[in-house]
Amino acid sequence: MKRLAMVDDTFLRFESRRQPLHIGMLMLFEPPAGAGKEFPAQVAERLKQSTRAAPPFNQRLVRRGGLHYWEQDDEFDLAHHFVHLSLPQPGRIRELLAMVSRVHGGHLDRAYPLWRIYLIEGLEDGRFAVYLKIHHSVVDGVAGIRMLINMMSTDAEASRQLPPPWEVGTRRSETNPLPIPTRTAGGLSALRSLTREGLKAFTPVLRELRSSFQDFRAKNADLVVGGQAPRCLLNQQVSGTRRFAAQSYATPRMKAVAKAYNATLNDVILAMCGGALRRYLQDLDELPDKPLVAAVPVSVRRDHTALGNEVAFTLAHLATHLDDPAARIVAIKSCMDYNKERIRRLSPAQLVTYASLMLMPGAVNALLGLTPDKALGNIVISHVPGPRQTMYWQGARLSGLYPASLLIDSAALNITIISRHDTVDFGLIACRKTVPHMQRLLEYLEDALTELEGTIK
Amino acid sequence: MKRLAMVDDTFLRFESRRQPLHIGMLMLFEPPAGAGKEFPAQVAERLKQSTRAAPPFNQRLVRRGGLHYWEQDDEFDLAHHFVHLSLPQPGRIRELLAMVSRVHGGHLDRAYPLWRIYLIEGLEDGRFAVYLKIHHSVVDGVAGIRMLINMMSTDAEASRQLPPPWEVGTRRSETNPLPIPTRTAGGLSALRSLTREGLKAFTPVLRELRSSFQDFRAKNADLVVGGQAPRCLLNQQVSGTRRFAAQSYATPRMKAVAKAYNATLNDVILAMCGGALRRYLQDLDELPDKPLVAAVPVSVRRDHTALGNEVAFTLAHLATHLDDPAARIVAIKSCMDYNKERIRRLSPAQLVTYASLMLMPGAVNALLGLTPDKALGNIVISHVPGPRQTMYWQGARLSGLYPASLLIDSAALNITIISRHDTVDFGLIACRKTVPHMQRLLEYLEDALTELEGTIK
Repeated sequence: MKRLAMVDDTFLRFESRRQPLHIGMLMLFEPPAGAGKEFPAQVAERLKQSTRAAPPFNQRLVRRGGLHYWEQDDEFDLAHHFVHLSLPQPGRIRELLAMVSRVHGGHLDRAYPLWRIYLIEGLEDGRFAVYLKIHHSVVDGVAGIRMLINMMSTDAEASRQLPPPWEVGTRRSETNPLPIPTRTAGGLSALRSLTREGLKAFTPVLRELRSSFQDFRAKNADLVVGGQAPRCLLNQQVSGTRRFAAQSYATPRMKAVAKAYNATLNDVILAMCGGALRRYLQDLDELPDKPLVAAVPVSVRRDHTALGNEVAFTLAHLATHLDDPAARIVAIKSCMDYNKERIRRLSPAQLVTYASLMLMPGAVNALLGLTPDKALGNIVISHVPGPRQTMYWQGARLSGLYPASLLIDSAALNITIISRHDTVDFGLIACRKTVPHMQRLLEYLEDALTELEGTIK
Repeated sequence: MKRLAMVDDTFLRFESRRQPLHIGMLMLFEPPAGAGKEFPAQVAERLKQSTRAAPPFNQRLVRRGGLHYWEQDDEFDLAHHFVHLSLPQPGRIRELLAMVSRVHGGHLDRAYPLWRIYLIEGLEDGRFAVYLKIHHSVVDGVAGIRMLINMMSTDAEASRQLPPPWEVGTRRSETNPLPIPTRTAGGLSALRSLTREGLKAFTPVLRELRSSFQDFRAKNADLVVGGQAPRCLLNQQVSGTRRFAAQSYATPRMKAVAKAYNATLNDVILAMCGGALRRYLQDLDELPDKPLVAAVPVSVRRDHTALGNEVAFTLAHLATHLDDPAARIVAIKSCMDYNKERIRRLSPAQLVTYASLMLMPGAVNALLGLTPDKALGNIVISHVPGPRQTMYWQGARLSGLYPASLLIDSAALNITIISRHDTVDFGLIACRKTVPHMQRLLEYLEDALTELEGTIK
C-alpha cells in the first residue's frame, strides 16, 4: 500500500459530480494496407485475451482514516476496463466526437483501478479509434502521453507484437526512448528546492516583481497579471456534460508561419486560438473589449538530457481585441517573449514562486469577488510535445493524438495540443451547456491558420 | 416553478456517486416484415427531427434555498437527450446487455431535464433496442411503464405516426386506455388518510401485530419479520458499476405451473427467483442456512376501476433452504397467502402502517448493528403488470420490456419483472463488483422454471 502524493490526492478531493477529474486521449489509427474491414474487431479480440495489468493499471484506490492509498488490485476485470464500441452509420468524425464526449463525461468508478480504454470501430474512412480515460490522480498529462508512446513502436511490423497498453504500464521502454518530458512532482519539488536555496533565492524573485510592477504602472501590454482577464462566457460554472472536438493541422503550414514571424510553434498555436476564440465569441456577441488571457504551462527544464521536468503557468493574452491577424501574432509573440525573458532570468524554483505571486491578485479576486467583471484567466491552453516519428500500434499507423483534458468551474473550455512531426493535433473540451456549439472552433482554428498564411504570402 | 414532492426529493438527496437513483427500461422491437437493415437508423433520423419536449421531459431541476423545484427548460438539447448507438459485431444480446449496463451506471446531469433515450441498433437477430433512463425523482416505476405504454399503440400502422416519447410525456392517451396501475404518492397519502381515519384505525393494526407476535412465538414459518434475513453477499456496499441482465420467459409456461399449484403468477416468479438464487449462491459457496428474504411491493388497490394505486412492501421468504422445487413453491405460496390474508384485513392506510412496523426490527438493527449477521432483507423483487396486448412503436413490434432498477447499499441486486400476455420479462440489475457473474441467474431462472414444470408433469 502506497500513500498518494499530495498533488495526486488533490485530484480526488476536488472531484465532484459536475467536475470529474480524469483526463482522456483519443488516438486515431490507420489499419495496415490490405487489412479487411474486420481488422479493428480482430485487434479488440486479441486485447480481450489479456489476463493481467501492470502498474498503474492494477492500482486500486483505498481510503483509510481519511487518507488515500494505492493498493494492488488482484481482481483484474478486463471487461470493466476494456470496451469495444462501434459507431452508428454513417460513421463520420462527428459521430466519433459525440461518442467520446459522452464517454469522457462519465465518472470512473473508484472501486476499480481508475482507467478505461475504448476501441471504437465503424469510421467511414476505415480508421479506428482508441480512447483512453485515466484519472488525473494516477498520471499527469505529459506522463500520460509518454506512457502512450511507450505502448507504440516506430516499426510497423514490431508493433503487431506489442502487448495491450495496460500490460505495458509506465515501465520505460528501453528499446524506444523518445525525448518526451515528464513532470516530476511539479510545483511541490520547486518549492522544496526554493527552501533549500534559502532566502538569497528570493532576491531575484523580488527583482522581477519590482520590474513587473514598473511595467504594470507603465501599462506595458506584454505584462499579464492574474486577475486582469475580462470575465466572459468561458468563466462559468460547468455542468457535468462535455463536448469534445478534435482536429489536426499540418505542422509544415504552422512552421512556415512561425518562421515568417521569427516566432515559435507555440506562438502560432496561441495566435490560432486567439483568432478562433475572437470569432467564436463575436458570433455570440460575447467578445470582451479587453484581450482574453490564457494560462499557458511552460516547461522550465534546463537539462535537456534529463527526463524530469518542471512546469510553471505563465499568463499570456491572446490579442483578441485586435482584428488584424498579423498584429495579433506579433502581440502574442511579444507577450510570450517577455514571459520567456523572465523565465530565463529565474531558476525553476524561483519561477514557480514568481508565477504564483503574479497569479495572486486574480486568486484573491476569485475568492473575494472584489471586481466581479475580472477573472483569474479565461482558458488553459497546453501545448505538449508529442512523438517526432511515425508511430504504429498493432500494425496500424497513428494518425492523430488528441488530448481531452478536464474542466473546473470558471474554466469551461480547455485546449490541449500535441505537436507531432506531421500534424499538430488540437483537442478541445468544453462544458456542453455553457459553451454552445464549441465544435465551431475547429473551423475557426483552420480559418485563423489560413489568415495567418495569407499575411506572409 | 413547482416544488418537488417530499418523496421525489428523497431520490435526489440520497443519490451519491456509487448510488445513482435513476431507473431504466430496455425495450426490444422487431422491425416490420420487409423492413431493411437501415430501419432502426431511419427511426433514429426521424426522432432527431423533434424540436420539443412535453412534461416531465422538459422539466429541469432548480435548487434554491436548499429546496428543489422543477422549472420549464427552454433550451431543449435533443442531442444531449437522444443518443443513437450501434453494437459491435457480432451483436448478440450479450453485447447489448453490456452496453446497457455501462449506460445505466452513469449519472444523469442535473443541469438538464433528467432523462436520456438511447436507440441501439446492430443486434444480429434484426431487432433493435430502445433504452430509457429517467430519474426516480421524476417518475416511479409503475408510472414510468404506464408512460412508455402510452407512447406505443396496439395498431402497427397507427404506431408509425406516433411522436417521439419525449413529445408524448405523461399525457394520458385517450384512444388507448390500458388497465395499468399508477402509484399516487404511495405511503405518504396512506399516512395522511390514516391520520384522517383517527385513532380507531389503529385498532386493527394492533390486532394484526398481536397476532403476528403470537405467530412469531409459535415459529410460524410464514411470518417474515424485517431483520430476520440472513446477511449474505447481496447485503454489501455497492460500487458505482452495474451489470444488467434480462430475459423473457413464456407466460403460458409460468401460468401452467401457477395453475397446478393453485398459485399466482407472482408466486411462480418468486419460486423461480428462489430457485435461481439458491443455485447462484451455492455455486459461490455463499448460500445461507436460513431462507433469503425478499421485499415484495404489493398493490393494495381495492377499486379496480381507479388508476390510482397504493403500494406497501411485504416480506416473503424465498424458501432457499429447501432443495425440492415443489416444496419451495408450496412454502412460498403459503408465505404469500399468509401475507395476503393480513393485507385483506387491513385498509391501505393500516397496511402501510403495519408493514412499516413489521420492518422496524430490521431497520433498528440496520442502524445499530445489534445482530450483524442479520439484514433488513436480502433483495427487492418487484412484479409490475405490463400491457396485455401486442404493442407497436414506429411500426415495430414490442418483443421485450425489461426494467433496470436502482441499487442502494446492502441491496446489491434487484429483480424487477413485467408480465405481459405472451412473455414475463425479467430485468436484473446488480453491482458488478459485489455480485459476480450475475448474468448466470438468467440461466438459473430458466432451469428453475423447467424444474417446476417437471414437478407437475
